[in-house]
Amino acid sequence: MKNLNKLRMFFSLSWEISPSYIIFLILSTLISSGQIFINVILPKYLIDELMGSKDFERLIILGSLIILSNLLFALLNNTMKRIMEVKNIYMNEMMNKAMADKIMNVEFSYLENPYYLDLKERAAFAANNQAAMERLIRDVASMLKNIVTILGLVTIMFTLSWILIILLSVVIIVSILAYRLFMNYQMNFFQEIIPVNRRYGYYVNLCYDDKLQKDIRLYDMSDMMTDKVTHYNLEINEWFSRYYKKQGKFLGLYGVLNDLQGALAYGYVGLRVITDKLGPRIGLGSFTMYVNAAINFTKATTELGNNIVNVIQLLGYLDPFMEFMSLPDEGQIGGNVVFDGDVESIEFKNVSFKYPKSDRLVLDNVSFKINKGEKISIVGLNGAGKTTLVKLICRLYRPTEGKILINGRDIFEYEHESYMKRIAAVFQDYKLFNFSIEENITGKELNEDSKKALNLIEEVGLKDRVESLPDGIKSLLGKAYDERGVELSGGEQQKIAIARALYKNSSLVILDEPTSALDPIAEAEIYENFNNLVGDKTAFYISHRMSSSVFCDKILVIDGGEVKDFDTHENLMKKEDSLYYKLYNAQAVNYQYN
Amino acid sequence: MKNLNKLRMFFSLSWEISPSYIIFLILSTLISSGQIFINVILPKYLIDELMGSKDFERLIILGSLIILSNLLFALLNNTMKRIMEVKNIYMNEMMNKAMADKIMNVEFSYLENPYYLDLKERAAFAANNQAAMERLIRDVASMLKNIVTILGLVTIMFTLSWILIILLSVVIIVSILAYRLFMNYQMNFFQEIIPVNRRYGYYVNLCYDDKLQKDIRLYDMSDMMTDKVTHYNLEINEWFSRYYKKQGKFLGLYGVLNDLQGALAYGYVGLRVITDKLGPRIGLGSFTMYVNAAINFTKATTELGNNIVNVIQLLGYLDPFMEFMSLPDEGQIGGNVVFDGDVESIEFKNVSFKYPKSDRLVLDNVSFKINKGEKISIVGLNGAGKTTLVKLICRLYRPTEGKILINGRDIFEYEHESYMKRIAAVFQDYKLFNFSIEENITGKELNEDSKKALNLIEEVGLKDRVESLPDGIKSLLGKAYDERGVELSGGEQQKIAIARALYKNSSLVILDEPTSALDPIAEAEIYENFNNLVGDKTAFYISHRMSSSVFCDKILVIDGGEVKDFDTHENLMKKEDSLYYKLYNAQAVNYQYN
Repeated sequence: MKNLNKLRMFFSLSWEISPSYIIFLILSTLISSGQIFINVILPKYLIDELMGSKDFERLIILGSLIILSNLLFALLNNTMKRIMEVKNIYMNEMMNKAMADKIMNVEFSYLENPYYLDLKERAAFAANNQAAMERLIRDVASMLKNIVTILGLVTIMFTLSWILIILLSVVIIVSILAYRLFMNYQMNFFQEIIPVNRRYGYYVNLCYDDKLQKDIRLYDMSDMMTDKVTHYNLEINEWFSRYYKKQGKFLGLYGVLNDLQGALAYGYVGLRVITDKLGPRIGLGSFTMYVNAAINFTKATTELGNNIVNVIQLLGYLDPFMEFMSLPDEGQIGGNVVFDGDVESIEFKNVSFKYPKSDRLVLDNVSFKINKGEKISIVGLNGAGKTTLVKLICRLYRPTEGKILINGRDIFEYEHESYMKRIAAVFQDYKLFNFSIEENITGKELNEDSKKALNLIEEVGLKDRVESLPDGIKSLLGKAYDERGVELSGGEQQKIAIARALYKNSSLVILDEPTSALDPIAEAEIYENFNNLVGDKTAFYISHRMSSSVFCDKILVIDGGEVKDFDTHENLMKKEDSLYYKLYNAQAVNYQYN
Repeated sequence: MKNLNKLRMFFSLSWEISPSYIIFLILSTLISSGQIFINVILPKYLIDELMGSKDFERLIILGSLIILSNLLFALLNNTMKRIMEVKNIYMNEMMNKAMADKIMNVEFSYLENPYYLDLKERAAFAANNQAAMERLIRDVASMLKNIVTILGLVTIMFTLSWILIILLSVVIIVSILAYRLFMNYQMNFFQEIIPVNRRYGYYVNLCYDDKLQKDIRLYDMSDMMTDKVTHYNLEINEWFSRYYKKQGKFLGLYGVLNDLQGALAYGYVGLRVITDKLGPRIGLGSFTMYVNAAINFTKATTELGNNIVNVIQLLGYLDPFMEFMSLPDEGQIGGNVVFDGDVESIEFKNVSFKYPKSDRLVLDNVSFKINKGEKISIVGLNGAGKTTLVKLICRLYRPTEGKILINGRDIFEYEHESYMKRIAAVFQDYKLFNFSIEENITGKELNEDSKKALNLIEEVGLKDRVESLPDGIKSLLGKAYDERGVELSGGEQQKIAIARALYKNSSLVILDEPTSALDPIAEAEIYENFNNLVGDKTAFYISHRMSSSVFCDKILVIDGGEVKDFDTHENLMKKEDSLYYKLYNAQAVNYQYN
């Protein structure tokens, strides 16, 4: 029943995307059924004529009828096939798009949770590579066709005798049971081999990856790689030897059963031709018809068995897709309060945070408050929780305990879109896209305010570089799909990311170590620009270059998830036992030699 | 002829990997051919008996003979199939391994050259995804089978009349011509759609990539993404509508021709049953045999046509594979002089360098000399050519002009392996592997000197961290294929990369901005350790943190590919108009506030 329910859900999704697809599918299955009947029944009359009166005219008519009806069906099938192929592409694209939309809109925290990332991968796999959706639809259509065919053929065979039907059915049931047994073995086998394959795949990919070759060469690792690949080659070969031995046995049995069905059909119907002990003797035309009916019956029942096994298996594949599609969207996170106006204050009230499925408190009872226009530097050792803190402000996660208030209100009370508009952030692992520079900055294909993007390009110091490009600000970044794309240096890319953050014109800016790839002069430039650019906005700043905190109003010192200090540079430098003092001097001491 | 030559090359490669594979392949094709003849000839006698004397015993014998011979063939086919499947996996693995070995050993510069990277991708595609190799082998085997089958069937049909053979051949030739025409159209179509598909694939991948979702959310880019995907959906649909319309026409024609062949066979052989105007009348047994022979002849010739088209097409796919496999290996770069002893001096003599297919001089007439044990800091703006300079020392590229001498000898005169052993480098984009920590450091699966790796772990300050891991130094890095792998922070990973570089115990060490992800205290630690660790080795150091150059003996200042200065920190700080002075002060000024 659960499977039927899933099937219903799936088809209502498909129906939503394209009702005509479903209708055409059913039509095309009926056409295939029709062709089978024509080719079972008509030849009987041809042969009867051939064996009987041999009327030339009627022979020609019957022969032509068989040929023409097959031609007609071929034409119909062809047309159907063409229409279905195009519709299939459309269906696949739409399923893909539904999945892509979901990924882009699902609550962000799912996307950093290994369980849901894995679910996403499996869902995407179902949606793409395996063509599971298409196969499911086709299998259900084929089920339909086979049921209609079987009913028709049973009716024909029944006019001869029910014995043949019983004989065939027994053999078919044995075949299906054997098939199911083997399918189970196969599923288990491929399940068990996943970790071996994953490891092997990882090794082979390493060998193939050009980005790794520098290290492989410098550290002479190719022998180790080859050994690892060879080791897993052998292991996989052993697995598959066993698998194919089993498969061989199954296919052998299956072949014997198949031949047995043929022998039964030919044998029983043949006996009915040469003797009347089992019933009235039949002619050669009827012989042909009943044998064909029996063969097609065998084929249709076997196919139906396979259809059912496949549908159950495919519904299993689609489970992750269904599960992923039912996750809550990000837009549903927040409340209804529209965030307008500026950020006037930000307050952390006893905020603690653990990543899902982890026991470690990344932030431990963090409390502090800042006001509009303040520039805050967040300082601490690697892994202190600095990036997590700003991610919480971006509402990418929910605090495990405590609250974050903006303008005195819990941030999760704000409506999603208006809240996200207020915040611009450049993370360490910021990404640019292979779109035009302008699209990267504005986030829009068509852009009302081209001047604004251009101004920002100038402000971050990229004007000359961008003007030197063949298409200026319309130049495509990167060569992922177009040779004419331009490759920018790491520093230039960072500048574009900063311009993108500033384009939002939000009243809160977060910069997470944005200048790590810049040379000292470019870095100094960005720092100088930074205060102008940020203007009267509130800003958080994370950097391992302690010098950047000198410019900030206050410094938030985090250690092991806890707030250790929250004060100005001057005051913190007076506390010689403070972490800040140590951190600052660890770098500053190197600049005292000049 | 060129294709025949490629085919010969390919089969000699296959024969080298597994001669038994080729032998089994030929055997299995002959078995398939045999089965066809049995099923064409034997039924004639059964039917003749059925129409004639109806001797019960002989009917049973003939019926059993058909069934048993089919069973025997099924058994043989099954065994063959099982053996071939396992051998196929082995062949694929070996082809893969050959490709992986080539990638890991080909001259490095090919791997940063877009043309050869593309070639590598296409070669890998041929070697993996398309199963092109396997299909090529199968198609050649199928060609063989079909030729044998056709010869046999022509002999049988010839006993009736050559007219049937001529009639069928004419239709078959028309079919093959139509097929070729459509294949050409298809190849062009899929070639033309590549850029559209690549762009669409890029967009869809963007939407699916969890690493990008933070930016997509923060910059509200999901609408733009969806628009782009939808736009290309429509474009692709239009392309495929056209394609399937064409395909529909072709399949229609193909179907008509196919039916025509059947009609000709049934028609001509049928006429020979009912009239003696075309020759002596034949019985129903012969009717069955000749019709079966004609149908199988049609099938075999059509298949043969397809085989030939496929083989030509697959040889085309394999071109990139063959081309890539014939690139020179890195081991062949150097000369024969074994590099033993230490690096006593390094000298750049008028070295200039352009990247392949680029006109810009990245290094322009660079000359300098350093001696054993000196620590050199390379300083310059982004894109000045710093990383390129050290890559040249690693022999990852050849200078476009000039020479690099080590111990007075051109570095390309040294034998490859011994040269690479002398150099340890940690690049900005260093990579660690999902192997154990020990394997990452030593580059060996089995390690003679476990203590050395442990000592280095302690020296880079990771002892406590590594000891806290469940498997210590044997712990697996990363979770790519094993849930139990450990995830280290960026800083910890860098430390392991430094330990790996030091493990080589080479007399020249290169560190390209290795500390960018470290906090100030971890950074200071590494700097402190660094001089101890490097000891009396020669070292190059690239960092944007100017403070690191204070520790160095000399500073090489590069600007726009040219050497601007090469002097000590003290001397350079006296030149107030120098780039170095500006760079140093740009950072130092921020540390003067305490």
